Amino acid sequence: MLNEVTISKGIIASYVEKFTAALELDVAIVGGGPSGLVAGYYLAKQGKKVAMFESKLSIGGGIWGGGMMFNELVVQEEGKAIIDEMGLVAKEFEPGYYTLDSVLVSATLVYKAMQAGLKIFNLVAMEDVVIKDDRVAGLVINWGAVKTLDWHIDPLTLHSKFVIDATGHDANVAQVLVRKMGVSLNTSTGGIVGEKSMAANKGEQHAVENTKEIYPGLYVSGMAANAVCGGYRMGPVFGGMLLSGEKVAKEISQRL
Amino acid sequence: MLNEVTISKGIIASYVEKFTAALELDVAIVGGGPSGLVAGYYLAKQGKKVAMFESKLSIGGGIWGGGMMFNELVVQEEGKAIIDEMGLVAKEFEPGYYTLDSVLVSATLVYKAMQAGLKIFNLVAMEDVVIKDDRVAGLVINWGAVKTLDWHIDPLTLHSKFVIDATGHDANVAQVLVRKMGVSLNTSTGGIVGEKSMAANKGEQHAVENTKEIYPGLYVSGMAANAVCGGYRMGPVFGGMLLSGEKVAKEISQRL
Amino acid sequence: MLNEVTISKGIIASYVEKFTAALELDVAIVGGGPSGLVAGYYLAKQGKKVAMFESKLSIGGGIWGGGMMFNELVVQEEGKAIIDEMGLVAKEFEPGYYTLDSVLVSATLVYKAMQAGLKIFNLVAMEDVVIKDDRVAGLVINWGAVKTLDWHIDPLTLHSKFVIDATGHDANVAQVLVRKMGVSLNTSTGGIVGEKSMAANKGEQHAVENTKEIYPGLYVSGMAANAVCGGYRMGPVFGGMLLSGEKVAKEISQRL
Amino acid sequence: MLNEVTISKGIIASYVEKFTAALELDVAIVGGGPSGLVAGYYLAKQGKKVAMFESKLSIGGGIWGGGMMFNELVVQEEGKAIIDEMGLVAKEFEPGYYTLDSVLVSATLVYKAMQAGLKIFNLVAMEDVVIKDDRVAGLVINWGAVKTLDWHIDPLTLHSKFVIDATGHDANVAQVLVRKMGVSLNTSTGGIVGEKSMAANKGEQHAVENTKEIYPGLYVSGMAANAVCGGYRMGPVFGGMLLSGEKVAKEISQRL
Amino acid sequence: MLNEVTISKGIIASYVEKFTAALELDVAIVGGGPSGLVAGYYLAKQGKKVAMFESKLSIGGGIWGGGMMFNELVVQEEGKAIIDEMGLVAKEFEPGYYTLDSVLVSATLVYKAMQAGLKIFNLVAMEDVVIKDDRVAGLVINWGAVKTLDWHIDPLTLHSKFVIDATGHDANVAQVLVRKMGVSLNTSTGGIVGEKSMAANKGEQHAVENTKEIYPGLYVSGMAANAVCGGYRMGPVFGGMLLSGEKVAKEISQRL
Amino acid sequence: MLNEVTISKGIIASYVEKFTAALELDVAIVGGGPSGLVAGYYLAKQGKKVAMFESKLSIGGGIWGGGMMFNELVVQEEGKAIIDEMGLVAKEFEPGYYTLDSVLVSATLVYKAMQAGLKIFNLVAMEDVVIKDDRVAGLVINWGAVKTLDWHIDPLTLHSKFVIDATGHDANVAQVLVRKMGVSLNTSTGGIVGEKSMAANKGEQHAVENTKEIYPGLYVSGMAANAVCGGYRMGPVFGGMLLSGEKVAKEISQRL
Amino acid sequence: MLNEVTISKGIIASYVEKFTAALELDVAIVGGGPSGLVAGYYLAKQGKKVAMFESKLSIGGGIWGGGMMFNELVVQEEGKAIIDEMGLVAKEFEPGYYTLDSVLVSATLVYKAMQAGLKIFNLVAMEDVVIKDDRVAGLVINWGAVKTLDWHIDPLTLHSKFVIDATGHDANVAQVLVRKMGVSLNTSTGGIVGEKSMAANKGEQHAVENTKEIYPGLYVSGMAANAVCGGYRMGPVFGGMLLSGEKVAKEISQRL
Amino acid sequence: MLNEVTISKGIIASYVEKFTAALELDVAIVGGGPSGLVAGYYLAKQGKKVAMFESKLSIGGGIWGGGMMFNELVVQEEGKAIIDEMGLVAKEFEPGYYTLDSVLVSATLVYKAMQAGLKIFNLVAMEDVVIKDDRVAGLVINWGAVKTLDWHIDPLTLHSKFVIDATGHDANVAQVLVRKMGVSLNTSTGGIVGEKSMAANKGEQHAVENTKEIYPGLYVSGMAANAVCGGYRMGPVFGGMLLSGEKVAKEISQRL
Repeated sequence: MLNEVTISKGIIASYVEKFTAALELDVAIVGGGPSGLVAGYYLAKQGKKVAMFESKLSIGGGIWGGGMMFNELVVQEEGKAIIDEMGLVAKEFEPGYYTLDSVLVSATLVYKAMQAGLKIFNLVAMEDVVIKDDRVAGLVINWGAVKTLDWHIDPLTLHSKFVIDATGHDANVAQVLVRKMGVSLNTSTGGIVGEKSMAANKGEQHAVENTKEIYPGLYVSGMAANAVCGGYRMGPVFGGMLLSGEKVAKEISQRL
Repeated sequence: MLNEVTISKGIIASYVEKFTAALELDVAIVGGGPSGLVAGYYLAKQGKKVAMFESKLSIGGGIWGGGMMFNELVVQEEGKAIIDEMGLVAKEFEPGYYTLDSVLVSATLVYKAMQAGLKIFNLVAMEDVVIKDDRVAGLVINWGAVKTLDWHIDPLTLHSKFVIDATGHDANVAQVLVRKMGVSLNTSTGGIVGEKSMAANKGEQHAVENTKEIYPGLYVSGMAANAVCGGYRMGPVFGGMLLSGEKVAKEISQRL
Repeated sequence: MLNEVTISKGIIASYVEKFTAALELDVAIVGGGPSGLVAGYYLAKQGKKVAMFESKLSIGGGIWGGGMMFNELVVQEEGKAIIDEMGLVAKEFEPGYYTLDSVLVSATLVYKAMQAGLKIFNLVAMEDVVIKDDRVAGLVINWGAVKTLDWHIDPLTLHSKFVIDATGHDANVAQVLVRKMGVSLNTSTGGIVGEKSMAANKGEQHAVENTKEIYPGLYVSGMAANAVCGGYRMGPVFGGMLLSGEKVAKEISQRL
Repeated sequence: MLNEVTISKGIIASYVEKFTAALELDVAIVGGGPSGLVAGYYLAKQGKKVAMFESKLSIGGGIWGGGMMFNELVVQEEGKAIIDEMGLVAKEFEPGYYTLDSVLVSATLVYKAMQAGLKIFNLVAMEDVVIKDDRVAGLVINWGAVKTLDWHIDPLTLHSKFVIDATGHDANVAQVLVRKMGVSLNTSTGGIVGEKSMAANKGEQHAVENTKEIYPGLYVSGMAANAVCGGYRMGPVFGGMLLSGEKVAKEISQRL
Repeated sequence: MLNEVTISKGIIASYVEKFTAALELDVAIVGGGPSGLVAGYYLAKQGKKVAMFESKLSIGGGIWGGGMMFNELVVQEEGKAIIDEMGLVAKEFEPGYYTLDSVLVSATLVYKAMQAGLKIFNLVAMEDVVIKDDRVAGLVINWGAVKTLDWHIDPLTLHSKFVIDATGHDANVAQVLVRKMGVSLNTSTGGIVGEKSMAANKGEQHAVENTKEIYPGLYVSGMAANAVCGGYRMGPVFGGMLLSGEKVAKEISQRL
Repeated sequence: MLNEVTISKGIIASYVEKFTAALELDVAIVGGGPSGLVAGYYLAKQGKKVAMFESKLSIGGGIWGGGMMFNELVVQEEGKAIIDEMGLVAKEFEPGYYTLDSVLVSATLVYKAMQAGLKIFNLVAMEDVVIKDDRVAGLVINWGAVKTLDWHIDPLTLHSKFVIDATGHDANVAQVLVRKMGVSLNTSTGGIVGEKSMAANKGEQHAVENTKEIYPGLYVSGMAANAVCGGYRMGPVFGGMLLSGEKVAKEISQRL
Repeated sequence: MLNEVTISKGIIASYVEKFTAALELDVAIVGGGPSGLVAGYYLAKQGKKVAMFESKLSIGGGIWGGGMMFNELVVQEEGKAIIDEMGLVAKEFEPGYYTLDSVLVSATLVYKAMQAGLKIFNLVAMEDVVIKDDRVAGLVINWGAVKTLDWHIDPLTLHSKFVIDATGHDANVAQVLVRKMGVSLNTSTGGIVGEKSMAANKGEQHAVENTKEIYPGLYVSGMAANAVCGGYRMGPVFGGMLLSGEKVAKEISQRL
Repeated sequence: MLNEVTISKGIIASYVEKFTAALELDVAIVGGGPSGLVAGYYLAKQGKKVAMFESKLSIGGGIWGGGMMFNELVVQEEGKAIIDEMGLVAKEFEPGYYTLDSVLVSATLVYKAMQAGLKIFNLVAMEDVVIKDDRVAGLVINWGAVKTLDWHIDPLTLHSKFVIDATGHDANVAQVLVRKMGVSLNTSTGGIVGEKSMAANKGEQHAVENTKEIYPGLYVSGMAANAVCGGYRMGPVFGGMLLSGEKVAKEISQRL
């Protein structure tokens, strides 16, 4: 006989243990897109205590939708190694252009990263950052539902040695840092430069180059890197996103 | 040098090939929740031509959210074999009650089903059914965005030997069939009976028992089975959902 | 030197003359879709005093969108003659299946019908019907904007010997007639039977068969005919719509 | 017997062929208003590979509504030649002021331009531009529904030798170029000057004068020209719009 | 020197005196349209204690908008006497058809009724009725803003010997009475019959005939009379509305 | 030095302990209005394990707003004893009519009930009931935010020997029970009869009389009692509400 | 027998005559509040050709609501003469403070102004101004419904020797002039200074002082005067509003 | 027998007396959060005439929600004395960290402050301030419902010797003062500096330090103090809030 209260207790106990453990992290990744998942995969693989926070219900962000709702995406030669690492089989459309089912890519990135040890907190939004000694030292979090409803309910706080802003075009972490603290970032202008128009080739290079620490304790990756540092956009080609995730993981790992 | 137009062409060509192939199916699964994914896994594993249609961006439905936004879920003893088949490692909370990370379960079900050969069309909504010789013979589909916006844009149509209504509590396929065709279903009342209140034990048994063909060509599975046939609800315990998916796959396979 | 007030006066004078003339009609067509436009074309060509009322800004309804936002549509062999009459050049996809650009079809139907003499009042909604001697004898109209905003502003009224309900799936004229007057229609049940699910072949035949006078003074055409009389739907194939428009024009002309 | 799947396949195949061909253009026109349609007409007539992209369902923009919902409009003497070219018969209200039915004008412009060879993609929105060698070299496009819903779904990209911003008062292409690239335009201030108040005479002259290349690869026409360059507005008189479309076509043709 | 607090106190004191006095009435009129204003005029003129309650900010309802936003209306011969009584000067359009500026009519009806002694509480909504001895004996009222926002805030109550439902097409008082008390009304069916389609002549006669006591203590007038008793609608001709208001005032006066 | 993580941990730990304890209750009260608070006060005072679930942020429901936003309320002679028990000092307006500040009453009821031992879970909504042996045996709960957003996220479940529906006019628990289980209630019709119009005297008596067990395991109190059993409404007088809360507490206590 | 078409024709004919006449005015008043109505009254009384344009359905603006929904307002000694002129009887609350029913004041101002000859176009919004020889020379108007819905529909235009911005706090005419033409106004800063906080005494004086021509052809009156010139606000005391209307009428009359 | 009109009269009379008395205050507190309630408690205890204005239905603001909807909060050692003063019993989680039920804290603060003599006007919004002799001298108030609906209805005004801005993060009073009067505040920049990111320790100290008079007549307390003066935020720890309320009460008391 199934007891509904035992089910409730099992869920609460497992969650609270997982959530409480995530209040003190090596790395907190904000945003559930491709560069964040790849970063989480490599960081977890190296045994770091790493968790991802995503305000929406599902993880994967814009990858699910492919290009213009046609649920396929392209990875170019440079990103092939990471696809192989993830066990994904791609079809070569033209030399150096591989097409993949975007739904499968989304699920695989989540699957592989969690198998490697990444903890994911979906439905949890980043509201603000913690500042300690002029350094980003953690996140202020709340339920995504509270943010969506704009209810006035206090958040909770976690500490993390490093934070990765992997929130895509909006670069939410960098935005809140600049808006509330008025600090200068490690960018060409000291501010958030803004994403440029489409130029896929440059965009892909920029996504990797711009992946860096923009303020003590805060890294940017993926489209957030281009948005913060003024790189071009690239559309539904994902090599740069994957490489950006790999790079940010490598750089942070060396400092832990 | 990356060429943006080649990327566009690669995506369009891959999608159109995949989509055109899906216009003539063995089995069309409507709704991207757990019973549909398990059904898709087993059907694809047996080499059936099977595709899933989900109006939302991501696949997995309510599983992502765990219980009350605590992203864990429970599977009881009866569902353990399917978890094992999916390669998921569960923690035993109390004897016979296994807790799993709900985000990992979502990603794993999608990953395994697609690896087995299931094609998934997210962002595509079921609008209506095709009727041929007093039998459900296919789906009328449209972009989920068109449905969300309630725009007046004509749909397209696909043929399928069987359709599975795996749309959860709403039982959308059964609803549209009854509303538009006024037919009698294979249920205790001939109509859509409606889901009962919570009684986890009964709900789990009902989900499996109610998984059946309710009209020539149309099966129901998962919560849609209980909603159509009048079963109890069971909350965040998923054994019944998994077994329902396994059962509907087995029954349809035997008829193909 | 252009005088803005002369421009205003020119527009007002032309409109008022056109609008006032339309207060006493032979035929009032409600809804700007394909069957209504074809009906308007043939009625105007025979010198009838005919006007169309459409609540939206543009004319053409769902045709613009093709199938699932792919802006192409299909006309089968039976509708080929009307396409030719309209001067449209179609491409044969498979024997008996002609594809046409849906944007071009929309514009052409409007263009040809107005060249033939049809008056079109876009932005004007049908609110109710006029009843005289147990017969539909005209329309109660208002700005579409008033209807959209649900503002309480009185309508105006026009008289018409016949009214065609060409409002598509909603069958708005028939709906308001039944709801407010409680009358019995010339259908199998005496009420609005409702559109059935998809069966293109039957749907096409039904659209023509169901095109008829359902209450003294009120005809239905196109999808409204199937919705009122219980025909199947057919999706983005338009032969039946065109033939329905031709039929309703022929039947009404004989009675004027 | 009609086969629904053949209908689906015919639509998909025709659309994909048309859409894929439009990924490499001579001229991409953004926005479906009068100046864009006239430009498309003349460019297509001269055999250029030209396509129009409009996020809404129907084409014609504000013309459909006449002045203040009175569906008539005015063309002055200067625009008479283009009206004649389109085969439209106007009524002279006062010397030099011609009134025309605005619905007929909308349909006729679409009809004539497409007959001349213009391809139109309704329901497709311009999201951004492609930049190559400091020049606008194409468009980043997405479904209009995706833009309306503000869903995070990646776009596709097309290349075009020239782009015309014919988006009316909003001047969307110029806006996105300035906002994302921070470039200086060929205007009196280097920025987007903004449309002035009403002065019909000046507005009409300005619309033609301001029709020009404002950045390498990007032309503005119609109200977008006045909005970008600081011209006066003119209301429901359309001579300037038509002449602007003719001018932009002529200038671009000479460079192709 | 003006003192803001004195202004506040003056307003509060005047309002509270007026509002408290209105808690015990001879007649409570619900809805601020033409029949209610005319009824209020005649009742107040005869010295009855009468107040009107209207949930919106302004009084006059749909009269302000004329016909289809053309702010003129028509009164036929039968209503001429009441127009004259109100001091309104009408223009005869055709014999027996008088046109009047609808804005002036709105203001004049309010002006004359209040000068005669009617108290008007705008921004106050009727939420329910008071029942005493199987009779409508008063109103349950709340701020219109509370109703608009659907906030859960308790109402206040007033007693009245008679209530007039002058709420137009919605017949809100009759609706709430039937819905909550399940009583039988003095109509052909015992229920709310519903307004019929347009037939101006019949509608005008019906509006007067249907003006009566439909339940002990509750009268209907104007369009509410036709809506409750099943009369035809008549559009922007107002003779019947005025006569209905005169009739209901006369009938109630005789019983006070 | 304050540590933010310690604050987070303190809150999580205190909450989880309180929440887990509430999964097995003597009495679960749904809705945070006056009758529920009084019931909770008396039950807790007698040492019962009792918790209240309210979907909104604050507790007190409609009491905060007084009558028509004038934040005062009335208690009549019959309710005076409970006011005294709560330590509230009332002003006698007329003999037997006491006025109190409605904000103070709200805060006091919450304060006194919690001091007595009632646990309150605000922001938690009742979604469904648990059924065991044809008896209401617990609640299916979810975050109020999930309900407000209509997100598809599974609930959790708790067991309770008795449930009190104190949800006011909506009678949400009774509604869900009847809608999903189709059972017959202990009312005059076996169904939910619906609240009647205003008659304060009867309404007050009814509120107490109708406070009873309407289905095994389920009691109704306060306005929910009148809504379920067909009592009159009474407006901003609260004696009946208080007495209803006292009665339901007494009846349930005797059975525990 | 009433003929519905005659009613329609009567309304259209009367409206078009009135509306066409208003395309060439002495004075166009934008906004239907108290200062505009008083200005219209005095201008019309002196035989000027004057019309008012108000986007909402009813005229009177915020006066209807009194202070904080208590429908009374105050006029101080200075405004007493205009009240008397309007035939309004006020109650003296304290020496120099007169209270009046705000509903009656609204209706009376409209009634008296229209009796004097003011034409009022409700439901018509000001969209822009006409500029001729560096002077405001008319209005660009559209239906208020078009503005509310933000539909892209062209406006019409009228010429007027003077325009009064009586749009209250928003000062819409001044705003559009500054935003679109970038001109310098006759204010302390050359721009729109903005309304200050509450100081009733100063606010009343400022409302009269700031009533002036702020740009050739454009006057401001009432709260718009304070908003444009930086005066204090005064709340529900109306002497200044009335005197402002009187002043603007006098100043303009002298120049016509 | 209960008389509904007596109930209405009792409520109106009590409210009007309370409200009229509050038009001339010693201290007006804007916002119903913890620092305002504590300030109100201490001011009332010292016999000052003090009232609180809160636009929402309930009082307590964000406290009700605890941290992240877990309805518990923390008070550290420094705030322990005020908790004791309020009679609240806290649980020590770790040395110096006390957890309390957030619902109980909300109710208790309201209860204690009102028992001490604070008058609370919920549902009443601050719209603006009164300025007299370059000093904040009162409030301009309106119903919260009017503000929520953005209806154009005039406010009322009250005078107060001091105003406390206790509106939390938004600092509404300071915002309106700066926006409308352009004055310089007693802050590091002269403007509203804005709240910084999370640093609980600093935030708590800042909340007390920043509690001060920022403009003659206007104090800030609680989160509004940090928002105006640029302090850090602190999340769900409330010692600083309580001490801020105590401090502002003490400072103002000394000046009365």
